[in-house]
Amino acid sequence: MNKDLQNTFHGLDSGDYYYARLDDDRYARQGFREVIYCEGKSLKHLTGIYQDMYDRYGYAFGTRATKEQAAALRQVIPSAEYDEISRILKVGKTEEDRIGNICICSAGTADIGVCEEAAQTAEYFGGNVTRIYDIGVSGINRLLSYTDTIRRANCVVVVAGMEGALASVVGGLVRVPVIAVPTSVGYGAGFEGLSALLTMINSCANGVTVVNIDNGYGAAYTATQINRLACGRLEK
Amino acid sequence: MNKDLQNTFHGLDSGDYYYARLDDDRYARQGFREVIYCEGKSLKHLTGIYQDMYDRYGYAFGTRATKEQAAALRQVIPSAEYDEISRILKVGKTEEDRIGNICICSAGTADIGVCEEAAQTAEYFGGNVTRIYDIGVSGINRLLSYTDTIRRANCVVVVAGMEGALASVVGGLVRVPVIAVPTSVGYGAGFEGLSALLTMINSCANGVTVVNIDNGYGAAYTATQINRLACGRLEK
Amino acid sequence: MNKDLQNTFHGLDSGDYYYARLDDDRYARQGFREVIYCEGKSLKHLTGIYQDMYDRYGYAFGTRATKEQAAALRQVIPSAEYDEISRILKVGKTEEDRIGNICICSAGTADIGVCEEAAQTAEYFGGNVTRIYDIGVSGINRLLSYTDTIRRANCVVVVAGMEGALASVVGGLVRVPVIAVPTSVGYGAGFEGLSALLTMINSCANGVTVVNIDNGYGAAYTATQINRLACGRLEK
Amino acid sequence: MNKDLQNTFHGLDSGDYYYARLDDDRYARQGFREVIYCEGKSLKHLTGIYQDMYDRYGYAFGTRATKEQAAALRQVIPSAEYDEISRILKVGKTEEDRIGNICICSAGTADIGVCEEAAQTAEYFGGNVTRIYDIGVSGINRLLSYTDTIRRANCVVVVAGMEGALASVVGGLVRVPVIAVPTSVGYGAGFEGLSALLTMINSCANGVTVVNIDNGYGAAYTATQINRLACGRLEK
Amino acid sequence: MNKDLQNTFHGLDSGDYYYARLDDDRYARQGFREVIYCEGKSLKHLTGIYQDMYDRYGYAFGTRATKEQAAALRQVIPSAEYDEISRILKVGKTEEDRIGNICICSAGTADIGVCEEAAQTAEYFGGNVTRIYDIGVSGINRLLSYTDTIRRANCVVVVAGMEGALASVVGGLVRVPVIAVPTSVGYGAGFEGLSALLTMINSCANGVTVVNIDNGYGAAYTATQINRLACGRLEK
Amino acid sequence: MNKDLQNTFHGLDSGDYYYARLDDDRYARQGFREVIYCEGKSLKHLTGIYQDMYDRYGYAFGTRATKEQAAALRQVIPSAEYDEISRILKVGKTEEDRIGNICICSAGTADIGVCEEAAQTAEYFGGNVTRIYDIGVSGINRLLSYTDTIRRANCVVVVAGMEGALASVVGGLVRVPVIAVPTSVGYGAGFEGLSALLTMINSCANGVTVVNIDNGYGAAYTATQINRLACGRLEK
Amino acid sequence: MNKDLQNTFHGLDSGDYYYARLDDDRYARQGFREVIYCEGKSLKHLTGIYQDMYDRYGYAFGTRATKEQAAALRQVIPSAEYDEISRILKVGKTEEDRIGNICICSAGTADIGVCEEAAQTAEYFGGNVTRIYDIGVSGINRLLSYTDTIRRANCVVVVAGMEGALASVVGGLVRVPVIAVPTSVGYGAGFEGLSALLTMINSCANGVTVVNIDNGYGAAYTATQINRLACGRLEK
Amino acid sequence: MNKDLQNTFHGLDSGDYYYARLDDDRYARQGFREVIYCEGKSLKHLTGIYQDMYDRYGYAFGTRATKEQAAALRQVIPSAEYDEISRILKVGKTEEDRIGNICICSAGTADIGVCEEAAQTAEYFGGNVTRIYDIGVSGINRLLSYTDTIRRANCVVVVAGMEGALASVVGGLVRVPVIAVPTSVGYGAGFEGLSALLTMINSCANGVTVVNIDNGYGAAYTATQINRLACGRLEK
Repeated sequence: MNKDLQNTFHGLDSGDYYYARLDDDRYARQGFREVIYCEGKSLKHLTGIYQDMYDRYGYAFGTRATKEQAAALRQVIPSAEYDEISRILKVGKTEEDRIGNICICSAGTADIGVCEEAAQTAEYFGGNVTRIYDIGVSGINRLLSYTDTIRRANCVVVVAGMEGALASVVGGLVRVPVIAVPTSVGYGAGFEGLSALLTMINSCANGVTVVNIDNGYGAAYTATQINRLACGRLEK
Repeated sequence: MNKDLQNTFHGLDSGDYYYARLDDDRYARQGFREVIYCEGKSLKHLTGIYQDMYDRYGYAFGTRATKEQAAALRQVIPSAEYDEISRILKVGKTEEDRIGNICICSAGTADIGVCEEAAQTAEYFGGNVTRIYDIGVSGINRLLSYTDTIRRANCVVVVAGMEGALASVVGGLVRVPVIAVPTSVGYGAGFEGLSALLTMINSCANGVTVVNIDNGYGAAYTATQINRLACGRLEK
Repeated sequence: MNKDLQNTFHGLDSGDYYYARLDDDRYARQGFREVIYCEGKSLKHLTGIYQDMYDRYGYAFGTRATKEQAAALRQVIPSAEYDEISRILKVGKTEEDRIGNICICSAGTADIGVCEEAAQTAEYFGGNVTRIYDIGVSGINRLLSYTDTIRRANCVVVVAGMEGALASVVGGLVRVPVIAVPTSVGYGAGFEGLSALLTMINSCANGVTVVNIDNGYGAAYTATQINRLACGRLEK
Repeated sequence: MNKDLQNTFHGLDSGDYYYARLDDDRYARQGFREVIYCEGKSLKHLTGIYQDMYDRYGYAFGTRATKEQAAALRQVIPSAEYDEISRILKVGKTEEDRIGNICICSAGTADIGVCEEAAQTAEYFGGNVTRIYDIGVSGINRLLSYTDTIRRANCVVVVAGMEGALASVVGGLVRVPVIAVPTSVGYGAGFEGLSALLTMINSCANGVTVVNIDNGYGAAYTATQINRLACGRLEK
Repeated sequence: MNKDLQNTFHGLDSGDYYYARLDDDRYARQGFREVIYCEGKSLKHLTGIYQDMYDRYGYAFGTRATKEQAAALRQVIPSAEYDEISRILKVGKTEEDRIGNICICSAGTADIGVCEEAAQTAEYFGGNVTRIYDIGVSGINRLLSYTDTIRRANCVVVVAGMEGALASVVGGLVRVPVIAVPTSVGYGAGFEGLSALLTMINSCANGVTVVNIDNGYGAAYTATQINRLACGRLEK
Repeated sequence: MNKDLQNTFHGLDSGDYYYARLDDDRYARQGFREVIYCEGKSLKHLTGIYQDMYDRYGYAFGTRATKEQAAALRQVIPSAEYDEISRILKVGKTEEDRIGNICICSAGTADIGVCEEAAQTAEYFGGNVTRIYDIGVSGINRLLSYTDTIRRANCVVVVAGMEGALASVVGGLVRVPVIAVPTSVGYGAGFEGLSALLTMINSCANGVTVVNIDNGYGAAYTATQINRLACGRLEK
Repeated sequence: MNKDLQNTFHGLDSGDYYYARLDDDRYARQGFREVIYCEGKSLKHLTGIYQDMYDRYGYAFGTRATKEQAAALRQVIPSAEYDEISRILKVGKTEEDRIGNICICSAGTADIGVCEEAAQTAEYFGGNVTRIYDIGVSGINRLLSYTDTIRRANCVVVVAGMEGALASVVGGLVRVPVIAVPTSVGYGAGFEGLSALLTMINSCANGVTVVNIDNGYGAAYTATQINRLACGRLEK
Repeated sequence: MNKDLQNTFHGLDSGDYYYARLDDDRYARQGFREVIYCEGKSLKHLTGIYQDMYDRYGYAFGTRATKEQAAALRQVIPSAEYDEISRILKVGKTEEDRIGNICICSAGTADIGVCEEAAQTAEYFGGNVTRIYDIGVSGINRLLSYTDTIRRANCVVVVAGMEGALASVVGGLVRVPVIAVPTSVGYGAGFEGLSALLTMINSCANGVTVVNIDNGYGAAYTATQINRLACGRLEK
């Protein structure tokens, strides 16, 4: 099957149907390497996609993998690495210089899984990352002591669950775009991140835009675009 | 009809049914004068209640009155006063010393209607009020410059719409209870105050409890209880 | 790592990033000892934080711990105690006199887990607690027979799932603030506590403020503030 | 057109289509006279239906009429009566003895519009009605003083907005079915009656069933069925 | 502990607090034997309550029990019986004649668990039950062929998931009250029964009232009240 | 400006920007004439679009127009016709034979506005329409008496508010596709059509698909496609 | 029991009640073989239904079966086949020619389970199926390259999770009806398919109707009706 | 009062309280001129703020003004200009060169009000704006014909109501960040923009971040930040 995949960029399931159509000209069109979204993919489909991508490029990188998916992949590609906190599953390595400065802040310790999905994805896309975790607004002094560090970035990613107020306060402190990532951390009326999402969408601070709940990957993608623009390294 | 009301504490509608049953021993039981919730009451019922209360006590005080209700009351009691911003409609005056210190903060200018409902109600209940309006977190320096003033209060009422993050930040700065009032101010996804309500209920800061959307009155009531406890003036 | 933590008050993950920033001056600023929110923290991060706090102060206290977290902590600190009902996980003991009177009421037996989170937290913060459980409004006589006991408190915490009506009835009986805690107990349309939360936020009784679903801890915190104010023991 | 309606029981719009198909055998099938639901009907359709029914039976009775609809009907049938509080619009009179006892309770004065829709509909269907308004749970003594009166009914209709807790408390006091009607009265997070609806659906008291928000008519219908069953006057 | 329970009607947890307060005069007040709501109760609390009730009355009856709870109870009272479909857990037997006729209809086979909770509870309360399952409206002929049987009942309980339309159609066919029970059966946008609940609350048919999602017990309770009224066996 | 529009198919606002880009090859691509969605368009933009379309084709047809928009258009094109019930605003006429048979059913009289939007749109697209209004399921005999008429159609459009159960019952009676249109008619918990939408999406009957609330136009479009396919008149 | 089932088309549970009433004249009335909806059925009931149907017709076909149900069925009918991806569980085979052309498109690889439920059901109902998976709109060129293939179908089923935009774009490309199936695939704010459902219901493209979340079966049913109409093979 | 305002940057209401606290160092801190959010501000407060700002800087610029607010301002400052489509209310003019390229796309004509709020705000902040309106995905060719124009921008703002799919398709075509603005345009189940918001938050395309419903201003702010970064004109 892999042979076939190399030629067609398609995953063929038991001769019946193609289960994946790799977006072949994406790198040309958008300047980003493919990232595999692992959630919900069957083990057969997932390992087929990883193997094809690894054969072609020498690396493959995916987010939101489960332990079970990681184990299945290691059966096929033993060198695959899995990070339980970020849930990133990868094989091989890209070789690229890192540029610019993306700052990733979290409100609490429990948000770190999402932060690391963002941070490691941004590094995979070639950006320098500054991590500042556990600076939620209930002790505002912690945040304020990092103001200068945060202001040095080309883009700030703010990751927060519960009420998600950190995004608004950071938005009021910096000149660059803030990308807010609500997380599903918190008590019942957080509704698995909905409350934080609404907080961020309604931010009274300017310059705050929002991605999906727990979507560290999406924040890293946009942050990379902005970081490249700021470094003069995004050719349209 | 008023005669009858004086004796029975009931409003009688055209001989058919009683439309109101004043909670006669409330003052004894809870230590608070009655406040009339005007919203949704018919003009006939509303003016009947005001007149009865005014006849009995020499004053009457209500919240969330419309202009139309105010006009109807002035037909009956010309000295009635209506404040369009707070929507408080009152007749006569209580004579009571004011005690303690309740601080009322707002995030924005558009929240002032709710603030004033809270402030004037708290004053009616006999509390001193400190007003600090338009100190939303998008310019955190405005809030921080008032930290000492806020810390002097026995209780802080925080009124905010949009994402309502002010409650969390204030909660992290003070030792006394913070009562958060979400307001219906904001863009579409604020959902008429729901977003601010969720923010406040999910506050990562401790010591924050929440009342209903735009419910300045409710916040003033609890703040008064706390203020009295702190002044040693609440007899259980 | 512990050494390092003692100096910096930071948790350092494998040399890569700090996973926690203890809010060092909180006790000075707010008068409350730190409480660890266990939910969602990885085992490595959680045990690191407990150990650091225990090393520093001789005790550590956390809420919403899972059995798995408790087991992991006992590997490191064998004397750690875990209460399955309240889900409180603690090491060591504070030595403090208890003051005042906080009354905690529950509607049903299934709400007791949240009640005990509140009760034990309030005791940890130095308050006397009166427990009155299973007095839901469907048999109102049970509640009414405790009216005098409840009225003796400086603050009442009402814990209820299903429709959460207990908060309104208690609110109408007492002069002191009522802190309402909705719980996730109930049939389908309770929506994991949302219905009880809405009931409490919309309470027709005065003096009721609300915290998050199942947030016994948060109620205990505010109740402690009020109890201290009433005892003249809160210095601002 | 009226001629035609008399024969076909259909409303014919300008020769194009029939706009109404009266459910001719409903009285035989269910034992209830027709009630017209006025909301959303165009003036032409509404007056056509009233006139047809009036011609046939000598009376017509409808709920949720607007002032504009009432005015339009009076153009055609000058004797039509409109009650602004209940929004009932009727012509003529039924002559029927009233039986049994249906008790209708309201939490507040602002709920009376819905109460009167229920009360007048129940009377139209031939039931005796006991009205007890403004006995919300925040002053539980008001309710308790009516316990005996309420217990005399064959069925209790409880009408309440805000948090709607009255239904649960009444449910715990009586042996007969309680029909709960949530109303759209209240502050923002009442969400136009949704909160009261959820409260009632989640009632911890037994014997409480629920109808739609502000649906006094629906409660009266079921209450009438129960009242007839209890009086031995419902032939199946 | 059981001794103590017999005297005080309270469950005492380890000497610290009472975990249950049986509503002792409920039978006198409402004419119904106690039913234990098992969901969410800890094993210790649950078995304590069953044992106390069994000691006192010779039987105990509870709903929504899990297999784990049933197993724990059998450790203490080996004769306890558990029905996996209805999730009813009971010990001993009541001896009472059955009266009247309650008809319980379901839309589909998957709704039977809720139906049986209703049916067995109604029988426990002393009613005759007619079961008609799997007559959903997509094949309306199935329902219509049972019209006469259904019309013989004093009260009809309609249990349906998915879109819950069965309640409206039955409501249009009978003269007696229909109690609608939405179930959590169905595809995604059924939202665990919310869709069926809304359908039933919005029923265009008259005489339909609604209880909570999957609440067979609650429907049985009200149906029993109506059945008793219809049989002249409910003394107020 | 109209001249310009004729050439570019664009609406030009004051030389600043084009406000509309007519989808010129839609007729070729999809076989349907353009329909103007009037809602939310400014008067200037709306009349510009109508005039351009009228100039080009000799007719223009739009849905969901307000009275104000109709009046504005008549200023420019006096022959424009507006139907208040369907809210259709049109100029000129198409000349086309009508084919096949589309049946449009409504549950109630108040749903007729949406029905007529559907019916007149379907006729504009060249279909024969059978109208059967006011046959809601609460009197199922009304519906059943039309079974044969309904079965003659190539496609059935079912329009219903409140609980929307009609779609399921019709779905169980016919062999052809049923397109369900929820309407915003009903009491509070209908939530402006949401309840009916959920009912229809969760239909237990097969062959039911759903369009947006009050979207008679959308139903007519799909019904026309199906009608054409059934008549062998849709060339792909 | 099976004997009995053959005669009565009823499932009889332990002599107590019938758990299923097969809709015997469905095939005559609607032209579709029965499909068993497995979700939520108890093992006893499910296997009873399969066996009865298999005995009668020589085949049985069900959707949304769990592995546990499949295993239970294989105990009784060892030749039963289960497909983990589509969750279809079947016994025996129908013999029917396939007609026409139904095209099934998916946005992503994780949607394939729902696609295959649709595809295999459509084949079971006698339709030819064209599968085009993983052509989501983020790389629009993938979709556009299949335009001609898609346009050849009599009906297009579009299956998509996340934001579900694929339905709108396909709707704009074809002349035949598009049936949109939202899936529960995606990040947090997809709310288990709700977001995709709303997207599809609000589609700006014409000719798009919607079925329930993950309801591949329902889409296949309507698609089959349309395909038969287009082939002139649906007799009304 | 204006004098006073010039010195204190505060609005003083009748000597009682300050109603506004201008964020004086915002320009220094964030590089953006102040924009007045008009919605919900009382006429007195609004005109006070405009006048103060105009006195100080020679211009003032606000969004979401009503006609009534515009008329009130013109009483005080007759040269104030109001644009009904964008609802922007301004006095005076800034003099600044425009840099870079921000592209603003809309799905439909009814979205133009929000587009123009974005476009005119971006121009006020000193950016060049390219407007491409009415290119919704139902006729994908319209969008594709502008691909090159859109790719030339440093940032793309996509404004769409209904299902909001345009953002995903544009996101897949460009290399720069896409800021998605949901609008409240559409049929009932659009829920005033909620559906479009969810679509955009769940976008399967990368590089899409989201702002509040109808928040053209917020999109313009972030777009300006990105445009400045891309032009090397944002000094941190």
